[in-house]
Amino acid sequence: MLVVQKFGGTSVGDLDRIQNVANRVAKTKDEGNDVVVVVSAMSGETNKLVEYAEHFSKNPARAEMDMLLSSGERVTASLLSIALQEMGYDSVAMTGRKAGIRTNKLHTKARIEDINPDTMQSYIKEGKIIVVAGFQGVNENGDVTTLGRGGSDLSAVAIAGALKADLCEIYTDVTGIYTTDPRIEPKAKKLERISYDEMLELASLGAKVLQNRSVEMAKKLNVNLVTRSSFSDEEGTLITKEENIMEEPLVSGIALDRNQARISLAGVKDRPGIASEIFNKLAVAEVNVDMIIQNKAVDDTTNIDFTVPVSDLNDAKAVVDTFIENGEIKSDSYNDDICKVSVVGIGMKSHAGVAATAFSTMAQNNININMISTSEIKVSMVIDEKYAELAVRSLHDAYELEK
Amino acid sequence: MLVVQKFGGTSVGDLDRIQNVANRVAKTKDEGNDVVVVVSAMSGETNKLVEYAEHFSKNPARAEMDMLLSSGERVTASLLSIALQEMGYDSVAMTGRKAGIRTNKLHTKARIEDINPDTMQSYIKEGKIIVVAGFQGVNENGDVTTLGRGGSDLSAVAIAGALKADLCEIYTDVTGIYTTDPRIEPKAKKLERISYDEMLELASLGAKVLQNRSVEMAKKLNVNLVTRSSFSDEEGTLITKEENIMEEPLVSGIALDRNQARISLAGVKDRPGIASEIFNKLAVAEVNVDMIIQNKAVDDTTNIDFTVPVSDLNDAKAVVDTFIENGEIKSDSYNDDICKVSVVGIGMKSHAGVAATAFSTMAQNNININMISTSEIKVSMVIDEKYAELAVRSLHDAYELEK
Repeated sequence: MLVVQKFGGTSVGDLDRIQNVANRVAKTKDEGNDVVVVVSAMSGETNKLVEYAEHFSKNPARAEMDMLLSSGERVTASLLSIALQEMGYDSVAMTGRKAGIRTNKLHTKARIEDINPDTMQSYIKEGKIIVVAGFQGVNENGDVTTLGRGGSDLSAVAIAGALKADLCEIYTDVTGIYTTDPRIEPKAKKLERISYDEMLELASLGAKVLQNRSVEMAKKLNVNLVTRSSFSDEEGTLITKEENIMEEPLVSGIALDRNQARISLAGVKDRPGIASEIFNKLAVAEVNVDMIIQNKAVDDTTNIDFTVPVSDLNDAKAVVDTFIENGEIKSDSYNDDICKVSVVGIGMKSHAGVAATAFSTMAQNNININMISTSEIKVSMVIDEKYAELAVRSLHDAYELEK
Repeated sequence: MLVVQKFGGTSVGDLDRIQNVANRVAKTKDEGNDVVVVVSAMSGETNKLVEYAEHFSKNPARAEMDMLLSSGERVTASLLSIALQEMGYDSVAMTGRKAGIRTNKLHTKARIEDINPDTMQSYIKEGKIIVVAGFQGVNENGDVTTLGRGGSDLSAVAIAGALKADLCEIYTDVTGIYTTDPRIEPKAKKLERISYDEMLELASLGAKVLQNRSVEMAKKLNVNLVTRSSFSDEEGTLITKEENIMEEPLVSGIALDRNQARISLAGVKDRPGIASEIFNKLAVAEVNVDMIIQNKAVDDTTNIDFTVPVSDLNDAKAVVDTFIENGEIKSDSYNDDICKVSVVGIGMKSHAGVAATAFSTMAQNNININMISTSEIKVSMVIDEKYAELAVRSLHDAYELEK
């Protein structure tokens, strides 16, 4: 089997942990697999370098930042390869460039354009363990680029795709994906398997483990992703395509997103195109609008409610203000004491009644639902934040996820 | 004027010092010059990385060490470029690869094979300040290599040669080259100019400033080198070709090398080729033999005395032992309480009596001379180490170097 293993910052946080990673890689090799390892910078290193740069400039040039930040992963990759060699394994450390990772020109958040796997493949044929510095590639000018947040995961997924690896294991300090946040519902169970689409909808459950960008790439490249812990031997969660999931569960998990705010616009002039104008301007301001509700018009005006991440609230207010100033919106109000609870499962596609169970569970607990949105595999509800834990636990019970 | 400025580890030892370097580079640019800057890693960084590697292996692979160690210079180059940009200067940070530095394959002590200056030249034409990560290049496989001790100086000299720069300034924490070590002779004067050959002979005076490898390359590429301090505005010492030195001084300086040991071989079988055999074997063992004296043979045997650096003494003993075991040498003795005092000056070429003054100065002070070696521009004497300071001060006086 060809396995790509990615180890994040805490997994390589000090020299003992790097040795621990070397032992794990060696074990995978001993079991008869070919192994390509992708590593992040030692935890704290990237932040230290960012602080150094910010000592000189509030807004340092992105090309310089890439040359600066890409050094951290090179250090870890070199050290891990040295550790493996000392244990008697034939290994080779590689920069992103050497691994053939080509990106576009967008420094500090480059996108991988393609991977030339020739060099890696020839080393694999020689039986070598390859250790790649994650988070980095090289653009058409030959300059080093970095891939932004979660970049090392992206490196690993892209490499797994290019090498047609059997498995891409993402090692963090978390054992896998749970049916819900175990800090809220201690009966939460680790999922064995989950589809890409479910994982994308359960983003908040996986936030500390995997960014959606990596899941999307895994889906596109058909890479079997496993998230597991580098601090235990416990099996992780396999994220794979729907066809690989034998028994489709009705509901896979309950996600909670506290990071939402609701914006209510009252007295919006009911003329054609007004909504599209508001939401276009919000898009230009890079405000991520999630749910939208538009009420029926009364007396030439209508009310529009929508939700945005709390971090986008100020930007959204600025856009709304321009409409208030020119009289197209009468008044606005904001509420960030809300949260979004989502029930996710691919089984919903073929089973009715999942949404009805969610609504009745809320009703039984006297939780008022402010907004609802649904998709083929998800029911999301906006509720007052004070009911967040109660809602999650009740839904977890209602769908019997502890079983 | 096109100026290459190289700043060593202590000159970029912390963020304030990097800012200080930025100010100095900016000043050079403001004076109407084109500037290419070469930087070392922040002091302590390289040692830290070496310690990390040695945590895993006593003998880490050299390719991995190069990927590891080359990261330190990248950090400094990025930060310095960011600092310059924040001050409003148009600057660009470059790796050794981007600067076109191609080396042979010998990881951790690669030799520069050639420099393709096209990229640097096009940036210079655009008016940009270039900041190059020193100490590193890239081999024909596209792998990063490092240049060994003093490698950033070599980068700077090679770049100055490739760009036909008017000046290559090497900034350290020392103001320049002195007529002798000021800690021994407080009247020592800083030299304004000195020839490459004199500098090579005065190696011990420049040891903390410049390695001979860099001086040799400067001589070969005809680069005007200046050593000066990054902590003061004082003029440094220009190291240049002989033709550029108007008034050739009889004597430029007095060098002292305490790091010598004398090996005396008694009863060496006087057969043809025996000396060549001994010194060939020492060469194979990488022992650097400096002076050699062979006495006239008496009774089929001869005595041979030679000096080696103290650090090579054990290796030399091992070689000598093989000859004692097979009976070709009767006995050996070792003395590391010796030192070498050298009088250096290109004026010697055309003036007699320089050596005579040296010998009579020793005689007047009752200092016994154990060994002598001379070249066109140098007289070296091995004496007991206890007379080291007295010899240096007396010679400094005798040649009136304080004037």
